[in-house]
Amino acid sequence: MAQFHYVFLFKLSLIIMILLRTSVNGKRFGTTKLGSKFTFVPTNFDVENAKNKEYEVYNYTQTLDHFNFKSESYTTFQQRYVLNRKYWGGTAKSFPIFVYTGAESSIMGDVEYSGFEMTLASQFKGLLVYIEHRYYGTSMPFGSYEEAYKNANTLGFFTSEQALADYAQITLHVKSNLSAEDCPVIAIGGSYGGMLASWFRLKYPHIVYGALASSAPILYFLGLTPENGYAVVVSKDFNSTSTSCYNTIRESWFEIDRVAAQSNGLSTLSQTFNTCLPLNTSQDLKDNLESWYKFVAQYDNPRANYLPTFCNATNRAGANTYVLDKIMAGFSALLGKECIYISDLGLQKYHGWHWQKCTEMVMPMGNGENDTVFQADPFDLAEYTKECKQVFGVTPRPYWIPIQFGGYGIKTVLENFASNIIFSNGLRDPYSSGGVMQNISDSVVAIYTEEGHHCLDLQTPNDTDPDWLKAQRNAEINMIEGWLSEYKIPNAN
Amino acid sequence: MAQFHYVFLFKLSLIIMILLRTSVNGKRFGTTKLGSKFTFVPTNFDVENAKNKEYEVYNYTQTLDHFNFKSESYTTFQQRYVLNRKYWGGTAKSFPIFVYTGAESSIMGDVEYSGFEMTLASQFKGLLVYIEHRYYGTSMPFGSYEEAYKNANTLGFFTSEQALADYAQITLHVKSNLSAEDCPVIAIGGSYGGMLASWFRLKYPHIVYGALASSAPILYFLGLTPENGYAVVVSKDFNSTSTSCYNTIRESWFEIDRVAAQSNGLSTLSQTFNTCLPLNTSQDLKDNLESWYKFVAQYDNPRANYLPTFCNATNRAGANTYVLDKIMAGFSALLGKECIYISDLGLQKYHGWHWQKCTEMVMPMGNGENDTVFQADPFDLAEYTKECKQVFGVTPRPYWIPIQFGGYGIKTVLENFASNIIFSNGLRDPYSSGGVMQNISDSVVAIYTEEGHHCLDLQTPNDTDPDWLKAQRNAEINMIEGWLSEYKIPNAN
Repeated sequence: MAQFHYVFLFKLSLIIMILLRTSVNGKRFGTTKLGSKFTFVPTNFDVENAKNKEYEVYNYTQTLDHFNFKSESYTTFQQRYVLNRKYWGGTAKSFPIFVYTGAESSIMGDVEYSGFEMTLASQFKGLLVYIEHRYYGTSMPFGSYEEAYKNANTLGFFTSEQALADYAQITLHVKSNLSAEDCPVIAIGGSYGGMLASWFRLKYPHIVYGALASSAPILYFLGLTPENGYAVVVSKDFNSTSTSCYNTIRESWFEIDRVAAQSNGLSTLSQTFNTCLPLNTSQDLKDNLESWYKFVAQYDNPRANYLPTFCNATNRAGANTYVLDKIMAGFSALLGKECIYISDLGLQKYHGWHWQKCTEMVMPMGNGENDTVFQADPFDLAEYTKECKQVFGVTPRPYWIPIQFGGYGIKTVLENFASNIIFSNGLRDPYSSGGVMQNISDSVVAIYTEEGHHCLDLQTPNDTDPDWLKAQRNAEINMIEGWLSEYKIPNAN
Repeated sequence: MAQFHYVFLFKLSLIIMILLRTSVNGKRFGTTKLGSKFTFVPTNFDVENAKNKEYEVYNYTQTLDHFNFKSESYTTFQQRYVLNRKYWGGTAKSFPIFVYTGAESSIMGDVEYSGFEMTLASQFKGLLVYIEHRYYGTSMPFGSYEEAYKNANTLGFFTSEQALADYAQITLHVKSNLSAEDCPVIAIGGSYGGMLASWFRLKYPHIVYGALASSAPILYFLGLTPENGYAVVVSKDFNSTSTSCYNTIRESWFEIDRVAAQSNGLSTLSQTFNTCLPLNTSQDLKDNLESWYKFVAQYDNPRANYLPTFCNATNRAGANTYVLDKIMAGFSALLGKECIYISDLGLQKYHGWHWQKCTEMVMPMGNGENDTVFQADPFDLAEYTKECKQVFGVTPRPYWIPIQFGGYGIKTVLENFASNIIFSNGLRDPYSSGGVMQNISDSVVAIYTEEGHHCLDLQTPNDTDPDWLKAQRNAEINMIEGWLSEYKIPNAN
């Protein structure tokens, strides 16, 4: 996971939001990115040291379509992967291979900034293999980003099943190249990458011996998880940080609506929120605020302290302060005094994750009436579909992921079938609401912390990490150690 | 499995071979069909009774490409499936659903002639669901057989992964329609259909609770099974029937070569073998003979007695009879006195299984030097590829199936991963050489008989069946009973 200092991140997020202004359509469904890229790093993270580690960058000539035999399916593209042999003990004793299942961003972010997989490699003398997901980074079919993202006919090959087949091909290629056929492979990934890691184990057990799936909401699909799960956890995060802060946010929506309904209301709101440009609608403002609340809740790790920072400032403003000024006090504490960009949060035609959301990754996220800190906003599949058709010319298949990968009754289904998967979560991560939170068997386990956030366990360990985080990582190491101690080199049939 | 009286079958095979004469290319690689369609029936089989069973034929609107989001991928076609509720106990007690995974022929053959799945349905009060494989029977994309088989761009969607996704969709559709969500699904299939049944369990364990995979050569792929496996079993079958018969066949090849090298040699051979048309090459003759030996070995079930019939006649001809006359004595005993069609056994452009052989189902079959009853004829991937490109314009992916479905070290890989699969075989079936012949765990088991042939256990049970066959089926019933007794209705997450 790429890791940034949180101030840098907030600036970056502003820049991104500016870029997103190019969106031609879509107002409501582009907001809740899985966001594995935007995890945080302790402020004392040693970036220089991380950069000094040794890695080798390769390209693999990948098949465009693994599940079709049309002429076009044979087209190839260069898929990037990275090796790090720094810790590898080699093939003699079948030391493990950790395959980092790249997700919705350039793989170099994961490689550059490292994380827990380096600890695992060091601990188990493992080889590190980072594989970039097709249609991200430089792993572009059709020669260029522009061509690849041209339309649904070039984007069509952009699916998680194709990505898993890519990983299978490259994993076997690397093993073969290094004569490491006998070495066990452990997949690691976070967020969407964590979903891929667990599915890689489930669908390719002959290639993947085990998986560490961090913050992987594999159950956040229609019929599996209540649509308000995400927002409910965000709400809990705020409420447990400060009930008065929670109440302030809840009140603020109605106040925004009240002001917006006045003549010059939008201008008043623009002024109150110090927006860089005049607001077009109050909904834009509310969408952006909601998005930020979700964002800081998802990434409020122990060192980031976003929620206390926000809520303390909000509360300090005092009970008699105007509710929107309280909100702004919170944002000022996080963002400083600069003007605030209110971005178009709709679907973006050139945004890989938005394509995925419009095809397979339909995560039904909505807010019910009075069950979250947000205003009611139920998930509307018809509206969602309409927007996807408008932006990408594609109709989502919202029921496909549960058909392809399962999810319903996952404990019952997998307890006598699967093995060697860790689902790790932090309960303060809103995505934990769609994660596997129960032990399925002795070796398919849920390891979670009450206090953790999104992909926290995958971050680079640090001496100052809280004990519960150290304990979570140790539990993961012990589990993997157990798997490896039982590993048998496959025998020819 | 469609079942025919063997005489009818031989006649049919002659008709088919005549049809195959339309082939424009391909001389050597079209011969070894998996052939689940051509199993045999006891001569006293009650066809009328089988026809009287109740079934309902439906079409399901199926997605053309499950793994792509191009516009074309959304095209649908009508996929046929058949229900038989005659034995079904209904949903109240979660009685099982047996899903028959259709293979390389019309599903109506399987439905019409029934078989062991009827016994299972009766035994367990099960619902029977027969699903036709895409591109077979009436389940044609693009509106018609001619359009579907037009070229690689219309045939491209014809893969086993798409077929499994089809089965997943239809299985869930049927369960939903009948409010049978809580009922366990057991997949059943033979030959290629058996491969699909086991893969259906492996890839979709959330949909399929168990599988009976009969004569499923899932290991007959490059790097997994010796290429001469098939021919070695054919050879053993002949040798164990009669060593002198075996020797006669071995000698005959060289005699054919010797005669062919003479002036008028081909005409002599045409006369000797009573061919309906003059021979073009002696290789055509040898290919046809080899194909028939393989065919009768594969299907020589206890009531068919092909090998004893052939070998007894060959031997009766006497030691002093000319070797090719001995061979012809054997064939006359099987086929009567009619002239023999020597067919083009090459790849056929409009033959579904040949397409599959030229894409994913590359089963490397060859004969080594002196290790079989046949002349040396090693598998030649380059030649195979060349022919596939010529006939279908497609390049096979010979290493893909083991990547997608595994196979190497299958015991080690699956023993702590999978559950509830029966791999059943008969050791006299040449395809058993590519089957799973060892128990993998308590519930992933190999049940085989020394005497059995291709898909024998799936045939309609009959009182006169030998005890070892009854024992095999009982073992399968007991295993499935064990699975069902442990079945738990999946709980919501």
